[in-house]
Amino acid sequence: MEKQTTKQMARHARDAFLTLSDTSAEIRDRALLAIGDSLIRHQDEVLLANERDVEQAKAEDLSSPLVSRLKLTPDKYKRMVDGLSALASLPDPLGHIAYAKELADGLQLYRCSCPIGVIGVIFESRPDALVQISSLCLKSGNGVLLKGGREALRTNEALFKAILEGTDRLHLPSGWCSLLQSREDVSEMLKLDQLIDLIIPRGSNEFVRFIIQNSSIPVLGHADGICHVYVDDPCDMATALAVTIDSKTQNYSVCNAAETLLIHEGIAKTFLPLLESALREKGVALRGDDRTRSIIDCAMATDVDWTTEYLDAILSIKVVKDVDEAIDHINQYGSGHTDAIVSEHNAHVRRFMALVDSAGVYHNCSTRFADGFLYGFGAEVGIATGKIHARGPMGLEGLCTYKYKLYGKGHTVGDLQAGKYSLTHRDIEPKLPDA
Amino acid sequence: MEKQTTKQMARHARDAFLTLSDTSAEIRDRALLAIGDSLIRHQDEVLLANERDVEQAKAEDLSSPLVSRLKLTPDKYKRMVDGLSALASLPDPLGHIAYAKELADGLQLYRCSCPIGVIGVIFESRPDALVQISSLCLKSGNGVLLKGGREALRTNEALFKAILEGTDRLHLPSGWCSLLQSREDVSEMLKLDQLIDLIIPRGSNEFVRFIIQNSSIPVLGHADGICHVYVDDPCDMATALAVTIDSKTQNYSVCNAAETLLIHEGIAKTFLPLLESALREKGVALRGDDRTRSIIDCAMATDVDWTTEYLDAILSIKVVKDVDEAIDHINQYGSGHTDAIVSEHNAHVRRFMALVDSAGVYHNCSTRFADGFLYGFGAEVGIATGKIHARGPMGLEGLCTYKYKLYGKGHTVGDLQAGKYSLTHRDIEPKLPDA
Repeated sequence: MEKQTTKQMARHARDAFLTLSDTSAEIRDRALLAIGDSLIRHQDEVLLANERDVEQAKAEDLSSPLVSRLKLTPDKYKRMVDGLSALASLPDPLGHIAYAKELADGLQLYRCSCPIGVIGVIFESRPDALVQISSLCLKSGNGVLLKGGREALRTNEALFKAILEGTDRLHLPSGWCSLLQSREDVSEMLKLDQLIDLIIPRGSNEFVRFIIQNSSIPVLGHADGICHVYVDDPCDMATALAVTIDSKTQNYSVCNAAETLLIHEGIAKTFLPLLESALREKGVALRGDDRTRSIIDCAMATDVDWTTEYLDAILSIKVVKDVDEAIDHINQYGSGHTDAIVSEHNAHVRRFMALVDSAGVYHNCSTRFADGFLYGFGAEVGIATGKIHARGPMGLEGLCTYKYKLYGKGHTVGDLQAGKYSLTHRDIEPKLPDA
Repeated sequence: MEKQTTKQMARHARDAFLTLSDTSAEIRDRALLAIGDSLIRHQDEVLLANERDVEQAKAEDLSSPLVSRLKLTPDKYKRMVDGLSALASLPDPLGHIAYAKELADGLQLYRCSCPIGVIGVIFESRPDALVQISSLCLKSGNGVLLKGGREALRTNEALFKAILEGTDRLHLPSGWCSLLQSREDVSEMLKLDQLIDLIIPRGSNEFVRFIIQNSSIPVLGHADGICHVYVDDPCDMATALAVTIDSKTQNYSVCNAAETLLIHEGIAKTFLPLLESALREKGVALRGDDRTRSIIDCAMATDVDWTTEYLDAILSIKVVKDVDEAIDHINQYGSGHTDAIVSEHNAHVRRFMALVDSAGVYHNCSTRFADGFLYGFGAEVGIATGKIHARGPMGLEGLCTYKYKLYGKGHTVGDLQAGKYSLTHRDIEPKLPDA
């Protein structure tokens, strides 16, 4: 096959999205299962390609966490294939009617969910992300342009081939999914605002920020995950310890891990020594402001610490005088991801939940719950810290938009204004007349 | 008062938004009524300022439609004030819970609507837009930075003064609303992506495109409104005439007016002569493709016509061979605003409604219905042709986002993974524990 330009790929994805937006859920779900079957058939090929990518990554001395994300074990492969049947069993995100109104006698308005169109996804080393994101796009009827990391090139190509073989068998338009090759292709994609409706970048902070600054296409995602735990006075000490320790240590390298602890001055002297011994045991390095350092022995935290996503066994700590100082700190230095309060004071809790301007505000539980699967969405597209369209963990809904369908019998606005009929604005059954 | 920088204004709007997001609907609604009262008290002042703006506009030879939009008559003024009490009587858009789930025993998740934050609005000559948009922002708890047209400077300042006097009486933070002075202030605003969450531009195509291209802040709005009517075969001829004529002529200068008629070849010879005589009577100039010109006498339509929003008494016409050619034409040349099919063929209708990629797809009714008030939203923020966040006419909902509130009893992900408790994912009553 001749190499396509990025623009041609986007056009084909656009045509395919229109075809997909008129398919039944059954066809899209069968296609997901067909991809699963094809991945099983091509497992040896894919794992071989992956071995070569891993060898090269090691030869090039890439970091060991990166190599471990890159490596596809048979176990990971199985989970990836299982994910496809799980996705196929989720309800159809398309065709939901969220607003149904009779505007006037014989004139019915429906707001129906439908695919967004063409989505550009740029992801890093994890090759399973390719399967996950393309299947989410297919389930929601979108066309997709994918760009993976250079280090996973062979694996991604093998996976991509298997995916297309799966959907070809069901005669879906093959352009629904394309794989971009180079960074130049990505730059090209970011300019195609007439053909591409949404960009989802998954990667490092700098990378996501670069994408947001360099595209006039809307972007959904998150750069930083600077999550806070605020321990209030009064609080239950055991809860405060459990939530702080889980938020920081349950997994260091994830965006919903806590990076900063804010502690009420009334309770700091009791709480901090307890926390210190628990965290030292787990090998967590502590950095505190002056008041923290007057209570426990730790390194100095500077302003840089408040805006740093460590993704590591480090916790910064600040003593605050009340819930309002905690709220101000979070709104100033946080990234709008997820922030928790541990408190037994109702008014403080209510204030924190209302005024912290983040996608997730939690009471007496760990920040680690910020996840689409845990939220009950069945699948996760990603986590967004912007406020437009989707916020927080995104399920399939985040890949959908809606259109208004209006059905009349020759209704005109002229007749309405001439008083020949009048508006009724009556709620009606959410069922299309042509369904 | 010392002049603030745009950045200071944005910071004050941000502080005010947080305060507003914790106010009751009652306070926000009383504030809207207080603005109405203040506008009544200051009516003479505002109308005097408006007269001076109008005089200057005439002296500067501005176009008469522009002067007419600029002119505030006592009647328009009354409608503006009435709009405030109508808005106050609408339901509160904040605090709606659209998703409520028990994740595990004692761990409850709620998705609650809340204000977006700080919104930048740039609008043209109509000074009533200042009152409308600032009141919509207040109702939805957002801070707002406003920039009006230079030609309405005196009117806008007088209106702005009256608005703030109204909300000052209720001790709302005065920074909730600020008026920018210059184009430089707008350029400055477009850079403040840390402080401003959304830009809503209302103005000419070029202007809106400029804003979209020059800001990394999300933008909601529409550049073009290139709406189509497609007359299918078979159709009811009287319906086809009524819908086409209303879509084109009911108001020429609005974004939901039709600019292009697509007509099925099987019916063109019957329909076009009827349409021609009806539209000529109303002074509408016709431009057709070759096949149209073989049936009726009209000017030649070129490719430029298919992408032009006339906003005038001009209609371009193209004969197509079937509904698919109509759909392709609309998806290629349209602006994703609103497009109608007139047809008595169910499969054609279903296909058109599914495949036309526009915010509004209509069957047997006029494109002029694309309007927030007609849709039953009570208030209209604007019309969006993008697909992210809001699409089509936007009600107050378009000015809201949501946050996830999670309430636990010391729940950790570590305990979950250790099997100490399990996920329930049970639907629960949408009512906050701290409400």
